[in-house]
Amino acid sequence: MGSQPTLSSKWATRRAEKARRMARVTPLLQGCLLPTERIVEALEALLVPGDRVALEGDNQKQADFLSRNLAQLNPQKIHDLHMVISSISRPEHCDLFDRGIARKVNFSYAGAQSLRVAQLVEDGKLEIGAIHTYIELYSRMLVDLSPQIALICAEKGDAQGNLYTGFSTEDTPTIVEATAFHDGIVIAQVNEITDKLPRVDIPGSWIDIVVQSDRPFFLEALFTRDPRSISEIQILMAMMVIRGIYEHHHVTSLNHGIGFDTAAIELLLPTYGESLGLRGNICQHWILNPHPTLIPAIESGWVKSIHSFGGEPGMEAYTAARPDIYFNGADGSMRSNRVLAQLAGLYATDLFIGSTLQMDGNGNSSTVTNGRLAGFGGAPNMGSDPHGRRHSSPAWSSLLQGESPIMRGRKLVVQMVETFHKGGVPTFVESLDAIQVGEDAHLPIAPVMIYGDDVSHVVTEEGIAYLYKAQSSNERRAALAAIAGVSPIGIASDPKEVERLRHDGLVAFPEDLGVRLTDARRTLLAAKSIEELVDWSGGLYHPPDQFRSW
Amino acid sequence: MGSQPTLSSKWATRRAEKARRMARVTPLLQGCLLPTERIVEALEALLVPGDRVALEGDNQKQADFLSRNLAQLNPQKIHDLHMVISSISRPEHCDLFDRGIARKVNFSYAGAQSLRVAQLVEDGKLEIGAIHTYIELYSRMLVDLSPQIALICAEKGDAQGNLYTGFSTEDTPTIVEATAFHDGIVIAQVNEITDKLPRVDIPGSWIDIVVQSDRPFFLEALFTRDPRSISEIQILMAMMVIRGIYEHHHVTSLNHGIGFDTAAIELLLPTYGESLGLRGNICQHWILNPHPTLIPAIESGWVKSIHSFGGEPGMEAYTAARPDIYFNGADGSMRSNRVLAQLAGLYATDLFIGSTLQMDGNGNSSTVTNGRLAGFGGAPNMGSDPHGRRHSSPAWSSLLQGESPIMRGRKLVVQMVETFHKGGVPTFVESLDAIQVGEDAHLPIAPVMIYGDDVSHVVTEEGIAYLYKAQSSNERRAALAAIAGVSPIGIASDPKEVERLRHDGLVAFPEDLGVRLTDARRTLLAAKSIEELVDWSGGLYHPPDQFRSW
Repeated sequence: MGSQPTLSSKWATRRAEKARRMARVTPLLQGCLLPTERIVEALEALLVPGDRVALEGDNQKQADFLSRNLAQLNPQKIHDLHMVISSISRPEHCDLFDRGIARKVNFSYAGAQSLRVAQLVEDGKLEIGAIHTYIELYSRMLVDLSPQIALICAEKGDAQGNLYTGFSTEDTPTIVEATAFHDGIVIAQVNEITDKLPRVDIPGSWIDIVVQSDRPFFLEALFTRDPRSISEIQILMAMMVIRGIYEHHHVTSLNHGIGFDTAAIELLLPTYGESLGLRGNICQHWILNPHPTLIPAIESGWVKSIHSFGGEPGMEAYTAARPDIYFNGADGSMRSNRVLAQLAGLYATDLFIGSTLQMDGNGNSSTVTNGRLAGFGGAPNMGSDPHGRRHSSPAWSSLLQGESPIMRGRKLVVQMVETFHKGGVPTFVESLDAIQVGEDAHLPIAPVMIYGDDVSHVVTEEGIAYLYKAQSSNERRAALAAIAGVSPIGIASDPKEVERLRHDGLVAFPEDLGVRLTDARRTLLAAKSIEELVDWSGGLYHPPDQFRSW
Repeated sequence: MGSQPTLSSKWATRRAEKARRMARVTPLLQGCLLPTERIVEALEALLVPGDRVALEGDNQKQADFLSRNLAQLNPQKIHDLHMVISSISRPEHCDLFDRGIARKVNFSYAGAQSLRVAQLVEDGKLEIGAIHTYIELYSRMLVDLSPQIALICAEKGDAQGNLYTGFSTEDTPTIVEATAFHDGIVIAQVNEITDKLPRVDIPGSWIDIVVQSDRPFFLEALFTRDPRSISEIQILMAMMVIRGIYEHHHVTSLNHGIGFDTAAIELLLPTYGESLGLRGNICQHWILNPHPTLIPAIESGWVKSIHSFGGEPGMEAYTAARPDIYFNGADGSMRSNRVLAQLAGLYATDLFIGSTLQMDGNGNSSTVTNGRLAGFGGAPNMGSDPHGRRHSSPAWSSLLQGESPIMRGRKLVVQMVETFHKGGVPTFVESLDAIQVGEDAHLPIAPVMIYGDDVSHVVTEEGIAYLYKAQSSNERRAALAAIAGVSPIGIASDPKEVERLRHDGLVAFPEDLGVRLTDARRTLLAAKSIEELVDWSGGLYHPPDQFRSW
């Protein structure tokens, strides 16, 4: 084969455009290194109005030096950018739209900025391309959303452009690969430029520009839950999950969503779980960020492996000291990878359990509530039954569906909610707010996080509905209503029908599971505070300041 | 954080074991380089009976130097290995089991060796862990199938262990990441050891041992189809697909499976598709290996982008010369990535179309037929409706399902088959052979490739069944029977019911689509031979010798 094929300009327009733009910043660069203070100048030289820009900013680490400076550009020069960004998390992300620098966005999640995003849409300043689950958004970068520029983030870089991400690898490799291998320009902010990297997470030949940030990138402690705030209702629900789902279905591989509900489960394994003799039988393989609340279960020998989407502040030394459990490199520090972890969460785990803000009578749920366009994150991916799965496991096979001889199992998708939120706001509603929010934002479909037909179990403080056993949509609705308490959905429940559903195993109350309400006490938690988590870790967990109370 | 946490031996058993084994081969190594002729010695020193071994060997490139030498080990010393291998493609893969070196396998595909695999199972020499779709298998390497050793394959390596994969990147990065970051040992065979790599595809700090192979790794031209062998029946079916599915549903992003059926579609775009005025309206973004049969459509301006699972022999120079279309690196050559392409095929494309060997009356299909345990490859992943998808497109939304206001679209999953195979063997059968094969191999579920409830359309030479429109399973069966010809499924079809189904749009015959049988001629193909494909490519396509007939 010819190693230097003729490159007709007709077929290399992206490459020519990249060369043209890079030539404009060459005077500012030393090799691939850009001086910190020249970033605004460089961005204005590299960008063109209407560009598609991938900005790294997921639910944890943020390329915030680059986003802060992007928001400083002159909107007369650079405007109408099309942002591709996993998480709209920072004020300057919204400033981009407010100032007219950006106009359109394809995203996954907008936690802290969800109110302002909804307002920007209403003001006509922000146009939503679509809301996605994380890996769906990255997939589109390889198909119809290929970025002209990617602004990404690493811990260290060298003069050849090699990057070390540390344990917060997260989305960086995927965003870089999608951009660098389609003649996009990749700019990396790093906390430090060094001669010798601990290891290479991203090869230098994939990176165009490295710039040292003015301060270390922002990293949110999103998965840290202080055990002090776990309520006895949450402990009761956690006990039901352990008995009625994990033990009942023999769940060995799983993912836990964010929240106090699942933190309670993690903290009950070494106590309540141990008393049931379940160690070694359930919860061995996890797809999970390094949750501090899982430390007691790890130390007690419950956990065989954990692959992570991202890092968690304060867990650096602990993960490094547990290489049998976490995925660590030859340098000793963890490497996370959101795409691979989401993939494993989809195809290689038996169960996903998460919480939600609203659920309708059919089990459809959303975290999008009035005035808040919060998006989805990873839940739609892991909270769905992958029809492409072909391997069996005891848990998966315990939900066998279809008619013999063509049968298959099913993923356990569990939603865990209290019937009412703080302030008496019902979780179970006749109609999801998401429908109205979707209409207001001109979305083509309502922003439902998890569809009811994918949900196999719902757990409330009242009990468990085994929705996968329902023979009809009416029976499904009845099983859900039976555990919906005095919410608008629950009060319509017929006591006779509930007794039949209990008898047939579609609904279980705590007493049906052998769970005693009087046992649901905070004393059952393996750790009752962040301080106790530090103790469990042998001092290896270093909680961020906001979680220290001693 | 502490940069050197205390490593208790209790928590670093994998790392200690790796160090122990690596120490045994240190005398053989110069840095990370192992002399070619010491490979058997090194493998015997590094492996332990019962090890889980990931052997790179997908449906294209093969770490065949390593697999050939693995099969030379002394089974008295090394036995009962547990292989994790995407494709059982080579004779020595089966020799491993025949000789007792390996005992168990988790795999995805066994094309050329499917007869022998079935025989080894029957002889009790091969135990199947499970058959998977590709990304499901890799996912499990991050959960419960973490390898002790990975044997992988690259084009070039340097003395620091950095690897250049060339355009056949494929599965290598994923297998290496799963192994290297859990204290497994990674051995890479390379065609060449060099001082200066064109680019780095895998960083050296992820690799333990590099060994130059005795000859370049084997690469199968799996996706090359000679247009000479495309029949007029296939042309007719391709015309129906273009009119009745691609145009009808406005399909802009898609994947084509392997085969002459889809090759015919590719070769009709610049002729028949052009005559319908569809250029720029359909088939713009592809997830696809570099199919030679797509060259005419690319050259005619149909294609905006192609992201690939792997490379295709002979297409090196052509892909390098079309960087606007393919995903190429700064060095000018393509990088493929099976996991990212499969992910994009799942979440970011609107349509998957493939062929199968058998289909039952409910639309369940399998390539597993009597005596052949062929496995699945990527079809179960791409041939399924991803319930986690949240973005809309015209094609996806044209299959809207659910009740308002909670509605969602659906992926188009199309099966394209002739009603009979060569030799008069019917495609449509009462019961899939896969059921019996599954029982014989003691599989927990029948090895179905694509489940009927995920199939939205079936195309035969008789017409198209729009299965997604069926209101009941009976109607589904009737629509499928209407296009099943004189097969056992088709002969039961009721002519009156067929007329109703045509009227209601569940079935379309060629005349309903404006497709004239007399137009289905080989003259309609944009290229009628491999030679004409070379001409279309301007001499950039260099077909392998077995495809040259001039």
